[in-house]
Amino acid sequence: MINRICIIGVGLIGGSLARALKASGACKEIVGTSLRAANQNSGKHIPGKQSTGNQSSANLLKAKQLNVIDRFETEISVAVKDADIVVVSVPVGAQDAIFIALADCVSSDTIITDVGSTKRSVSDSADKYLGKLSTNFVPAHPIAGIEKSGVEAASGDLFQQRRVIITPTENTSKIAVSVVQSMWEKTGAEVIKMDIDHHDEVLAATSHLPHLLAFSLVDTLSQLDEKSEIFKYAAGGFRDFTRIASSDPTMWHDICLANSNAILAVLETFTRDLKKLEQAIQEKDSQFILDVFVRAKKSRDTFCNEQL
Amino acid sequence: MINRICIIGVGLIGGSLARALKASGACKEIVGTSLRAANQNSGKHIPGKQSTGNQSSANLLKAKQLNVIDRFETEISVAVKDADIVVVSVPVGAQDAIFIALADCVSSDTIITDVGSTKRSVSDSADKYLGKLSTNFVPAHPIAGIEKSGVEAASGDLFQQRRVIITPTENTSKIAVSVVQSMWEKTGAEVIKMDIDHHDEVLAATSHLPHLLAFSLVDTLSQLDEKSEIFKYAAGGFRDFTRIASSDPTMWHDICLANSNAILAVLETFTRDLKKLEQAIQEKDSQFILDVFVRAKKSRDTFCNEQL
Repeated sequence: MINRICIIGVGLIGGSLARALKASGACKEIVGTSLRAANQNSGKHIPGKQSTGNQSSANLLKAKQLNVIDRFETEISVAVKDADIVVVSVPVGAQDAIFIALADCVSSDTIITDVGSTKRSVSDSADKYLGKLSTNFVPAHPIAGIEKSGVEAASGDLFQQRRVIITPTENTSKIAVSVVQSMWEKTGAEVIKMDIDHHDEVLAATSHLPHLLAFSLVDTLSQLDEKSEIFKYAAGGFRDFTRIASSDPTMWHDICLANSNAILAVLETFTRDLKKLEQAIQEKDSQFILDVFVRAKKSRDTFCNEQL
Repeated sequence: MINRICIIGVGLIGGSLARALKASGACKEIVGTSLRAANQNSGKHIPGKQSTGNQSSANLLKAKQLNVIDRFETEISVAVKDADIVVVSVPVGAQDAIFIALADCVSSDTIITDVGSTKRSVSDSADKYLGKLSTNFVPAHPIAGIEKSGVEAASGDLFQQRRVIITPTENTSKIAVSVVQSMWEKTGAEVIKMDIDHHDEVLAATSHLPHLLAFSLVDTLSQLDEKSEIFKYAAGGFRDFTRIASSDPTMWHDICLANSNAILAVLETFTRDLKKLEQAIQEKDSQFILDVFVRAKKSRDTFCNEQL
C-alpha cells in the first residue's frame, strides 16, 4: 500500500485518480495542492508561456468537501512532504513551473509522475529542471478523458479498462517505473510502455488533430452569417462530432504548442488528403469520393468493433 | 386519416417514418417498394451516376416481417396505385430514376415528397422529370438520423422533437404542402419552411462538411504506418468525433455531388481558417490559438445548452 500521494492540480484527471485510488484502498492519504501553490512558492522566474489554469485554494477546498482528497496544502513544500508519489496533473504548459518548484522541495525518495497528453515536452522539462531528481520521474499519460473538466466531474471509474501509456527512458529508475505502473493498475487501467516520440506521433493523430479540427470547425461556423440557423438545425451527428470542442481551451492550447511538430506533420497529411477530396468533388469524380467514404467507414467500424 | 402511403426505399428513414405513422394511427396502410422496382419498371435510360443503393425485395421482405410496412410491391406502378402520398426515401443520387418512373404511373391526385439531405438537386430533378406532377411534389428533409442504416435500425421515435425542413416553391400545391406538413407532425416533428438554396447552404455547414471531414480524417489515419496503434489508443473523444464516418458511404457520396457548390464554399472557408490556425501553431502564436479554442468552446456549449 502507498502511504501518501500528493496530487498537484485536482481537476478531472487528478481528481479521478484520487477517487480511484481511495476506492481501491491503494493509498492511505491523498494530499491535494495546486499550480498556484507551486508558482507562489517557487520564488523563481518561470520561463515560457504561463498557463491560464486557475487551480486555486477554492478548488482544493471543493475537492476536500467532495471527499476526493484527504487534505490540501497551499504551500508546495508542505504538500509534497513525505509523499511516496507526486502526481503532476496540470496543463502541459505549466509543467516547467511545477518542476522548478519541486526541484527545491522534493526528497530523493519521492517518485514523480505526470498525466500530460504530450510526453517529449514534459520529459525535456523534467531533465532540465528536476536535475538529479529526473531519474525518479516517470512520464505517464492516461488515455481517458471527457469534454468536461474540473473536480466536480471526477470519477473513480474513469480509468477502468482504459490504457495508460508510460514513456520511461533508460535513465528512469526501474523502481519508479514499477511503482507508477502499480498505481495505475490499481485504478483498473492497463499500463503500456512506449517510446516518447512515438507516443507524441500517435497521440497527435488520434487525439490532438481531431481536437484541433473540432475547435476550428465550430469557430468557423460560429462566425458565419447563418450561425444561429446552423446551430439550430444541427442534429445528433454534429453534436457528437463537436463534443471535443467543449474541452478545456487552456489544456488544448498547451498541447498544441507542446506537441506542435507532430501535430503539424499529421495536419499536413490530413490537409493534403482533404484537398484531394475537394478536387474530386469539384471534378465530380464519383469513384474517388465513394472509395474514400467506403474505406473510412470500414476502418471506423473495425476500430469500434475491436474497442467494444 | 391518410388512407395509403407508399414508401420507396424502406431503410432507416423510410422505415422510421412508417413506424411513426403506424404508431400514431395516422395512416391505414403503408406500402413499401424499392429503388430497384423503380429502375426495373421505368424502362428508360436514366441519366447521371447511378446510386449503388441496393433496396431489394429481400429488404422489403424484412420490412414486412418486422411489421414496418403492411405490404410490399416490386412493381412500382402497383406500389403507388391509389396512394395518397408517395415518399421517396432513397439516396439523393437515385432520385432522377425514381421521378422518371413515377411520371409514368402516379395519379395527379397523389402527393409526392422526399426525405433527401439536399433540396436544390431534388427540386430541379422533380421539375425536369415529373412534368405536370411537379406541383404535387413537396421537397422535405427530416433533420434526424444516426450513423446506422437499414430497416433494422428504424425507430418510430426517430423524429420526436426533431425538425423537418420543407422547401416548397411558389408553384407547389398548397394542399400538398399542408398534407406533407401534417404527416410529419404526426411523427412528433416540428415542420419548418425554408428557401431551397438557403437549406442547402445551412446543411452544407452543419451536416455535410462535418461528414466530409470525419470520412476524410478516418481515411487519412487508416493509411498511416501507425494505423493499428492510432486506433488502439483512440479514446472516447475520437469515437464521438468519427461516429459519422460510420454513415452510409453511398448516401454521403450522393450528397457531396448533389450539393457540391454549397459544400465547396463552406469547405473553402473552413480550410482558410484551419490554415490560419496551422500558421499560429507554427509561429507559436499563443493568443491566437487560445482565442480560437475559447470562442469554439463557448459556441459549442451555448449550442448544446439551447438544444437540450
